[in-house]
Amino acid sequence: MNTFGRLFRLTTFGESHGPALGSVIDGCPAGVTLEAATIQRALDRRRPGQSAVTTARSEGDRVEILSGVFEGKTLGTPIAAIVRNENQRSGDYEALRTQDRPGHADRVWRERFQHRDHRGGGRTSGRETLCRVIGGAVAEAFLARDLPQVRSVAWVERVGGLVAPPPPMTLDREMVDAHPTRCPHPETAARMEQEILEAKAQGDSLGGVIALRVTGLPVGLGEPVFGKLKARLADAFAGIGAVAGVYWGPPDLLDALVRRGSTFHGQAQVYGGIQGGLSNGEPLEARVLFKPPATLGNHARQGRHDPCILPRAVPVLEAMTSLVLADLWLQHEAFRHLPG
Amino acid sequence: MNTFGRLFRLTTFGESHGPALGSVIDGCPAGVTLEAATIQRALDRRRPGQSAVTTARSEGDRVEILSGVFEGKTLGTPIAAIVRNENQRSGDYEALRTQDRPGHADRVWRERFQHRDHRGGGRTSGRETLCRVIGGAVAEAFLARDLPQVRSVAWVERVGGLVAPPPPMTLDREMVDAHPTRCPHPETAARMEQEILEAKAQGDSLGGVIALRVTGLPVGLGEPVFGKLKARLADAFAGIGAVAGVYWGPPDLLDALVRRGSTFHGQAQVYGGIQGGLSNGEPLEARVLFKPPATLGNHARQGRHDPCILPRAVPVLEAMTSLVLADLWLQHEAFRHLPG
Amino acid sequence: MNTFGRLFRLTTFGESHGPALGSVIDGCPAGVTLEAATIQRALDRRRPGQSAVTTARSEGDRVEILSGVFEGKTLGTPIAAIVRNENQRSGDYEALRTQDRPGHADRVWRERFQHRDHRGGGRTSGRETLCRVIGGAVAEAFLARDLPQVRSVAWVERVGGLVAPPPPMTLDREMVDAHPTRCPHPETAARMEQEILEAKAQGDSLGGVIALRVTGLPVGLGEPVFGKLKARLADAFAGIGAVAGVYWGPPDLLDALVRRGSTFHGQAQVYGGIQGGLSNGEPLEARVLFKPPATLGNHARQGRHDPCILPRAVPVLEAMTSLVLADLWLQHEAFRHLPG
Amino acid sequence: MNTFGRLFRLTTFGESHGPALGSVIDGCPAGVTLEAATIQRALDRRRPGQSAVTTARSEGDRVEILSGVFEGKTLGTPIAAIVRNENQRSGDYEALRTQDRPGHADRVWRERFQHRDHRGGGRTSGRETLCRVIGGAVAEAFLARDLPQVRSVAWVERVGGLVAPPPPMTLDREMVDAHPTRCPHPETAARMEQEILEAKAQGDSLGGVIALRVTGLPVGLGEPVFGKLKARLADAFAGIGAVAGVYWGPPDLLDALVRRGSTFHGQAQVYGGIQGGLSNGEPLEARVLFKPPATLGNHARQGRHDPCILPRAVPVLEAMTSLVLADLWLQHEAFRHLPG
Repeated sequence: MNTFGRLFRLTTFGESHGPALGSVIDGCPAGVTLEAATIQRALDRRRPGQSAVTTARSEGDRVEILSGVFEGKTLGTPIAAIVRNENQRSGDYEALRTQDRPGHADRVWRERFQHRDHRGGGRTSGRETLCRVIGGAVAEAFLARDLPQVRSVAWVERVGGLVAPPPPMTLDREMVDAHPTRCPHPETAARMEQEILEAKAQGDSLGGVIALRVTGLPVGLGEPVFGKLKARLADAFAGIGAVAGVYWGPPDLLDALVRRGSTFHGQAQVYGGIQGGLSNGEPLEARVLFKPPATLGNHARQGRHDPCILPRAVPVLEAMTSLVLADLWLQHEAFRHLPG
Repeated sequence: MNTFGRLFRLTTFGESHGPALGSVIDGCPAGVTLEAATIQRALDRRRPGQSAVTTARSEGDRVEILSGVFEGKTLGTPIAAIVRNENQRSGDYEALRTQDRPGHADRVWRERFQHRDHRGGGRTSGRETLCRVIGGAVAEAFLARDLPQVRSVAWVERVGGLVAPPPPMTLDREMVDAHPTRCPHPETAARMEQEILEAKAQGDSLGGVIALRVTGLPVGLGEPVFGKLKARLADAFAGIGAVAGVYWGPPDLLDALVRRGSTFHGQAQVYGGIQGGLSNGEPLEARVLFKPPATLGNHARQGRHDPCILPRAVPVLEAMTSLVLADLWLQHEAFRHLPG
Repeated sequence: MNTFGRLFRLTTFGESHGPALGSVIDGCPAGVTLEAATIQRALDRRRPGQSAVTTARSEGDRVEILSGVFEGKTLGTPIAAIVRNENQRSGDYEALRTQDRPGHADRVWRERFQHRDHRGGGRTSGRETLCRVIGGAVAEAFLARDLPQVRSVAWVERVGGLVAPPPPMTLDREMVDAHPTRCPHPETAARMEQEILEAKAQGDSLGGVIALRVTGLPVGLGEPVFGKLKARLADAFAGIGAVAGVYWGPPDLLDALVRRGSTFHGQAQVYGGIQGGLSNGEPLEARVLFKPPATLGNHARQGRHDPCILPRAVPVLEAMTSLVLADLWLQHEAFRHLPG
Repeated sequence: MNTFGRLFRLTTFGESHGPALGSVIDGCPAGVTLEAATIQRALDRRRPGQSAVTTARSEGDRVEILSGVFEGKTLGTPIAAIVRNENQRSGDYEALRTQDRPGHADRVWRERFQHRDHRGGGRTSGRETLCRVIGGAVAEAFLARDLPQVRSVAWVERVGGLVAPPPPMTLDREMVDAHPTRCPHPETAARMEQEILEAKAQGDSLGGVIALRVTGLPVGLGEPVFGKLKARLADAFAGIGAVAGVYWGPPDLLDALVRRGSTFHGQAQVYGGIQGGLSNGEPLEARVLFKPPATLGNHARQGRHDPCILPRAVPVLEAMTSLVLADLWLQHEAFRHLPG
């Protein structure tokens, strides 16, 4: 339902136009250094209104930690953190009370739940990903202590027809954040920005591909049959609203499938990182396909939605990755012990 | 770990070269018509050795139901069914005791579990999917009673560079099974078969794409945030060994991403079937990318592995789909009730 | 960990001296009438300081609903509700920073979690039960809609050596709340009150027995093997700090065990309510044994703890009962459907 | 449903008169020494027909391991083990097809599941506990490797009105098994045997109390709020059919509740073993109340049921204890790791 993970678990709550959104992280070990400021920094990376290429909504999004942290360290108890919805402007949405937005899940949600908050999508709003970022920030604080060599970095590889070349293995989040599109290839980034602004001016929208690379993984994360590392990540990524697909392998995987196994596997191993469902210690790369957002034209302007959500989705994918890794690491630890 | 699902749950066990493989299906309601023959038919579709394009191993794979069924109907208790490993030929694998197979998970598994069955991959063997097919057969028996209008059909859409055109909406499993490649487009199927036989002769292997279509779904299956229908399916499919990716949308999704939202969404809706994480009652299509199998050359001949596993993976994808749908339908029922 | 239930799920968080305590209830169907005032009333019944027989701490305990409710009805999304810790008086506890309280879990907790909030027990404080009462109030709102005939009522049956006679089948919560000891037999209640005040004056404490009766249950709640109704309730009750035992049957069960089956079962059926793990539609009675609280003498006066927690535990047991019933009812609904 | 535990998990299946009963143990680490003979010995302790005081049914109960073990060690994969029902004698039960047995759950089960196996109770039969004993044997093999100092021993403390005095701390299973009643106090045991034989001759039945002692526990097993060690054990024990209650503390807990906290806690600590939900390293004692079995008179003779199931329930309680401890130990390990 609204809980993600088995041992390191994120439970999220909150409607986009209710009093608050929040997260409860249960299963984070005690003694992990964590401050509200750490979570706040993660939220700021997801926040809209940072540049012209994302939505103009100015969301304050100040996080407050309610439990689980004492004197700057986690207590081993559930960590609850909330963000108040300060800028609700319900009036903007009053027209939607009796009307389903085209391309949205309004009708489906109404048939399932009968009763619904018509203001901005409720739980189906992209604002829900804020809770994932809170969870991811806690997961990263834990990983930073227990698996300090793990690094995950996502970047915008493609917007519409524009594709950036593969970045160097030294890529880090700072390099990604240097451009508002979060494409680390400056030339492509500039063209992407122009493309997004044009789409925005026309009330149109753009999809694309975010790539994700994880390095420094220990060997053996994941389960051999149903909880394969790639399955856990696929679940994590496909659970984000606009995601239309996930794949492992080279950027042009569909084209690469032409090749036979004898030539394919050299390359696959480079991009692989997963064997038999488990991490093999090599870098892992995934690619996540995003549909163009459905909100168009007048609705887009009225609700101030993004013409291209990929830049803001980058920290969300990283957060989901950290949640999966933290959970699998705890699982790994549970079973690691050997006869004394 | 080795359990899939929340309410309709499949637990699998068995190594490819141990005494038996089996499944326990817990959460199947009472009164569902089920015979061993129903499960056997599903297993026969997955069985290798049916034609020259798949592995030559002759697996008997006779299923035995141990519990949960009485006088041809389910009891509402756990259904356990097993298949003995009759044709173990351990001798063939003796050389592998001290040696990790290239491209396989042997090394990773050894680091994780220390102790391992060197004969044929244990739980990472493709033979493990037999247990999923047992579970899927029970799920389909349940769906056939409670959601009789639901139809799921998968087909081989692409092998290497060969791509079949979209099949008609009337496509059914019989049409798919008519050709050993399970490609329902006869001309493409014939070329695929030739391609596979060539690869086989050269000790090589081929990947491709299986497409899956589900029709007749009720509105509202899935959960809005973490258990989205597409996330559950992505998890289900990515949990199959050779799967390299999953996407929703047109066959050429990567190319389609060039288009802007204003032109994209008409088509997306046709292929969609999912909105806000929930089924919307329209047909749903997914595409699953398969890497070429890793077993090559001498090893392939010795262990008698498939040059192209796609034809045999078709019933496995259908089984995973039915398991997801059965589980989500029970969840849907739990929350459906209205004030009396 | 900190989640209770499978479908109707309560996740709790908060330390007794942190910023806030709270609950997330996930799995409550949409459309259930729920106001903050409903939860507040339930909290007020648990609140200390209502009479001389309970602790003198004046806890404001104002609940705030953060999500899941819109225009007075549940949305089907997670319901989060918090209570701020306004009256922390940390100074009172500063002496405990380096010192484990005798009879408390301080030492055990420290060995397990290393890092701990020394102020008042953190998560092991009785204040944690506040979160259970929030969850129970939501569960009751749901049951009031879907199983309106279900009534659960708990009462203080025994304090120290004082035992009240069985109350009439018409017993309701109002009758229980009429006396501050929550014993519905006025004469025994008066003696209990005196006993408690004496113990309090001497810095001593008292245990006893709370009885619980549930009527109006539908047939078939529970699972036949591992989730038996009685096992779910035993888990729910034994999860409360001071509980030392749980039993089903007559008040003097230990004495009744002298009897043989031929004479025992007439009576057992009357008190029973459960057969084969499932509710049988008859009234169910359970009895819960409470140890005398461990905080004694000076510590008791300093931390203002209860000499006898039974009166305040009555609504906590009712809350846990409602959570179990709501969860089992959803499970029952999931599997109820018959062939159409 | 039919799975017990979170990380070390037992899934059971099988009806008392179907083809087989069995268990799947998922989450047992790799490398644990395990043979079918180990499980067989545990089953033999539970087997009826060992003496005149238990049922005369001669159940062969030969266990077969189907998976998860290779060359005498666990593989880290699911361990499946089954026992065929060889001695079904369905004819004996044919009269029960259309008739509910008094005192049994037949009617309740029928209303819940509609379809039912009338032969001997199906899953509600005491024979189901065989699956728990299989699971417990695997759990003990794991504990023997990882927590070799842990010892759990249960014994029959009371049958009807006969109560044995507390045994010495040196009590072990061999001493318990020395007498067919499994009461380690020879004089009381002899009187219990006579009492049981009398009840049997009269077609009557007897209940009583089994005590359980666990020593050598590490500090910190259990969860502070919902998964308290005592709650997990209460759930485990109350899930056994004939159990009517569970308590922690001295044999005469109900009488002891007369005492005030100031005098109670010295003794409670001795019997305690649990503080704040977690094990504190001291010996833990629990007492489990059993109702007299419901099968009486002619039915008892026809179905050959036990007049007193306590002797046979001793290994079942030990098995459930080991399952809980194995699960909590894995959980403990998952969260134990400290910053490097």
